[in-house]
Amino acid sequence: MSKRIEFQTGPDRYRHWRIAYDGPVATLFMDVDENGGLFEGYQLKLNSYDLGVDIELADIVQRMRFEHPEIGAVVMRSAKEKVFCAGANIRMLGGAAHAHKVNFCKFTNETRNTFEAAGEESGQHYIAAVKGACAGGGYELALACDHIIMTDDGSTSVALPEVPLLAVLPGTGGLTRVTDKRKVRRDLADVFCSVEEGVKGKRAQEWRLVDEVVPNSKFEETIAARAAEFAAKNPNKDARGIVLEPLQRSIGEDGSLTYSLVEVQVERDKRLATITLNGPRDEAPANTAELHAQGSHSWILRLARELDDAILQLRLNELELGVVVFRSQGAADRVAAHEKLLFDNRETDWLSREILLYWKRVLKRIDLTSRSLVALIENGSCFAGILAEILFAVDRSYMMEGDFEGDNRPVASITLTQANFGPFPMSNGLTRLQTRFLGEPEKVGEAEAEIGEALEAHDASRLGLVTFAFDDIDWEDEIRIFLEERASFSPDAMTGMEANLRFAGPETMETRIFGRLTAWQNWIFQRPNAVGEAGALQRYGTGQRGEFDMRRV
Amino acid sequence: MSKRIEFQTGPDRYRHWRIAYDGPVATLFMDVDENGGLFEGYQLKLNSYDLGVDIELADIVQRMRFEHPEIGAVVMRSAKEKVFCAGANIRMLGGAAHAHKVNFCKFTNETRNTFEAAGEESGQHYIAAVKGACAGGGYELALACDHIIMTDDGSTSVALPEVPLLAVLPGTGGLTRVTDKRKVRRDLADVFCSVEEGVKGKRAQEWRLVDEVVPNSKFEETIAARAAEFAAKNPNKDARGIVLEPLQRSIGEDGSLTYSLVEVQVERDKRLATITLNGPRDEAPANTAELHAQGSHSWILRLARELDDAILQLRLNELELGVVVFRSQGAADRVAAHEKLLFDNRETDWLSREILLYWKRVLKRIDLTSRSLVALIENGSCFAGILAEILFAVDRSYMMEGDFEGDNRPVASITLTQANFGPFPMSNGLTRLQTRFLGEPEKVGEAEAEIGEALEAHDASRLGLVTFAFDDIDWEDEIRIFLEERASFSPDAMTGMEANLRFAGPETMETRIFGRLTAWQNWIFQRPNAVGEAGALQRYGTGQRGEFDMRRV
Repeated sequence: MSKRIEFQTGPDRYRHWRIAYDGPVATLFMDVDENGGLFEGYQLKLNSYDLGVDIELADIVQRMRFEHPEIGAVVMRSAKEKVFCAGANIRMLGGAAHAHKVNFCKFTNETRNTFEAAGEESGQHYIAAVKGACAGGGYELALACDHIIMTDDGSTSVALPEVPLLAVLPGTGGLTRVTDKRKVRRDLADVFCSVEEGVKGKRAQEWRLVDEVVPNSKFEETIAARAAEFAAKNPNKDARGIVLEPLQRSIGEDGSLTYSLVEVQVERDKRLATITLNGPRDEAPANTAELHAQGSHSWILRLARELDDAILQLRLNELELGVVVFRSQGAADRVAAHEKLLFDNRETDWLSREILLYWKRVLKRIDLTSRSLVALIENGSCFAGILAEILFAVDRSYMMEGDFEGDNRPVASITLTQANFGPFPMSNGLTRLQTRFLGEPEKVGEAEAEIGEALEAHDASRLGLVTFAFDDIDWEDEIRIFLEERASFSPDAMTGMEANLRFAGPETMETRIFGRLTAWQNWIFQRPNAVGEAGALQRYGTGQRGEFDMRRV
Repeated sequence: MSKRIEFQTGPDRYRHWRIAYDGPVATLFMDVDENGGLFEGYQLKLNSYDLGVDIELADIVQRMRFEHPEIGAVVMRSAKEKVFCAGANIRMLGGAAHAHKVNFCKFTNETRNTFEAAGEESGQHYIAAVKGACAGGGYELALACDHIIMTDDGSTSVALPEVPLLAVLPGTGGLTRVTDKRKVRRDLADVFCSVEEGVKGKRAQEWRLVDEVVPNSKFEETIAARAAEFAAKNPNKDARGIVLEPLQRSIGEDGSLTYSLVEVQVERDKRLATITLNGPRDEAPANTAELHAQGSHSWILRLARELDDAILQLRLNELELGVVVFRSQGAADRVAAHEKLLFDNRETDWLSREILLYWKRVLKRIDLTSRSLVALIENGSCFAGILAEILFAVDRSYMMEGDFEGDNRPVASITLTQANFGPFPMSNGLTRLQTRFLGEPEKVGEAEAEIGEALEAHDASRLGLVTFAFDDIDWEDEIRIFLEERASFSPDAMTGMEANLRFAGPETMETRIFGRLTAWQNWIFQRPNAVGEAGALQRYGTGQRGEFDMRRV
């Protein structure tokens, strides 16, 4: 599995999904092309999926919000006769490297979270209409919907058969959404997760596994009724979408990526990627009409899309880069002006709001990226507002202090705006500054009092906004030594350390999925009982059960 | 590492710790005997520890609460010159089987939680007096104390060098207590956890890593002053302890355990342990004077101690048993009477309170036991109050319903008491019934309205207190089939599933330690970068660094 994975797609290229639009309701048909797997060696039977199927889904969910804001209900259903979705493809999982499995699960988790959030954030509600077998990752798709309708046709069931069948966990949020979203009684959850055949009919509703079970004869009318009810709640009924144009991007032989606003320098020998974000060349749009006219060309949306793509490229295609450095160059006041238009209009303009919500997702994607994240705040940088938020997402930041010989760029500064005090909560529900200052909450207020000021190194240090500030004498050596050392550490230890240090404070369903559930799944994905030659994943489909080392840990 | 591990010890047998009592203050000297390792193949240099050292510590902490309630401050310090504690012994970790490593960490975590809770629950505060190197598990010992005093002698430091030095995590709560207890700023935590040499002097205090840094010349007087301050808060200054007499126990050749009140039947071929708890033969003590006179012979304390020991025996010495079944036999009303004495007097009598607090720990020990836990509520059983709480700790429960041919025992029933509605919170801060009924909170109230009633199967099912009820026709087969199936599943998948399903609802520092941190540590403990032949744990001490697969996951 070493070919470059591409995350950019579009409606004319989907192989696995079809969408029908009908006024405020969209119907999303899962119709996986058996022969359309991302890699060789498996067939995507029974609507099973691999990363390629999920990349299309992520694209659909994203376009639904930007291109179809008028849609208030998305009905997710199967185009196949006897199966809703059989979950992640087992042969793909059996053949995939550990790192691919883990990153595959992370991406699918992010996609689930995205369509789950669409209802609450944008009034775009996903409804699962379950007919046929809905198992494992298939049920996890349904679990992330706002409402699950199941037909009572005698054979349709929901199931999480991973544990008894495959000796792995339902790791795409399944266990957590069963206990924490659907609040299934824990002993019933235990029964449910232990039976291969799952649960059907009224019992599924009694156990809280689905929201309603309807006779097959009423299935279609119930779907239509629920879709209409959810669609009626959409505040953007009359909105007209924008088109998400293809990204401009070129890829160098060394893996470096050049977008219109984002440059990613890849230095594989140093295990280092450097992402440079360029500030706006133009003035901010004068008003929302101009913003809409610019559409996906607007600086602030384009930057988000390019950065999002860059992170995914690094995650899945550059596994050996241990450190990601964020830089920026540009005019901080212009960054602040561009985002201000969105903040000023987010209550009334759906696009302003959607772009901010997208930045929320991109920033979370950074939080959840298992690489050491570092920010360099150099002269000429433009870490203001939304971009300053990146400074509080990274593991450490270094800032230039004082005069640098021969450097005529404006002196390094950080500008806080309203972006840093509420609109971009982390998975834990706190802002990044609240998380940073958990032990000194008064520091959040001190920082807020400096909104709009260009804070140079001395002030940024005093306020606790940067890890270290170095002058011209020390800067280069300190950073070089740090980056070399960081890149030499065991990637696993770094992953575990960062996953624990980044999310202090409260937990949410989201942090539990990425923290607790993912960690256990990753552990199991290393265990011979699952992935060894005689393990259940490898034995799947051979008619032989897995052979297990029965020692409990 | 296959010899039987013994958890029972006592002051006359300690090899690694010394205690000096001085009025309300105890000083606990860590003085690990290099040659006193639990297993062959390593020396416990520099106050490094293995499970044997921690078993003594757990015994000390337990006896401090029961035998020395007059103690209000326990100063933890080193008896060695240049080192406070070097943490878990690396050679021991390098040589131990995965299952031993994981269970070792769980036990040490439970011990840390126990002395951390002693301050808040019983006014018995632990103070770390740090002089000399305090690294890894050594700093984690200090982190679990209520107060950390560090000397500023130019060489003393605190450190978590696991990541850079060993490619594993500080897994005994270290990362979580740094972010969530001490609330260290996350980028500073990142720096701290990446430097082998740690942090010393004033910086340690500025970064919130310790509570106070004092000149070496003031070290002793500061310790004395803080100890006196904490000791003054102890409400039990004038209490006289009881003696925890040695447990009665015999071990059969098949691993079965027979205590005075607890029987553990071990069926290795079935991968099954059955724990039978016997109710009180005698009336409850008439008053607290009688309770004190009975001391550790009292039914309710003896049962807790025996059950606690039985669980530890199964965890560490019977790794291949996948299922633990809980049964009870006895008079429910007598169980309720015994616990009622404690509840009636817990505000005024320290021993009543301590016994209840010990049950809280024992019940948590059950929650955290990585085996499938099942309760059988049979005729003649006495699942009332504290014992009924076990029914809500297990993964599933089965209850006898109706007449059973030839069975003349009293019909199976469950009796709820105040024990089930507050005094025994789980790690997540909720009661077991609150956790059970997260989706139907009104059910907690419905159950509470039935306090004192002997609830037979029909009512217990209606109230949602049991998973299944079976009659004479189905009982035997249903349970046999279930136990066989359960014991055949991959132990790893069961561990992961149970760790996710058992702790719905809110998270606490404790659940984060056992859920998130432990899961990541377990994962890393499987990774070649740590435990492979060229991994950092194996290479430690050879002068060679670990060789790492640099792929990030």
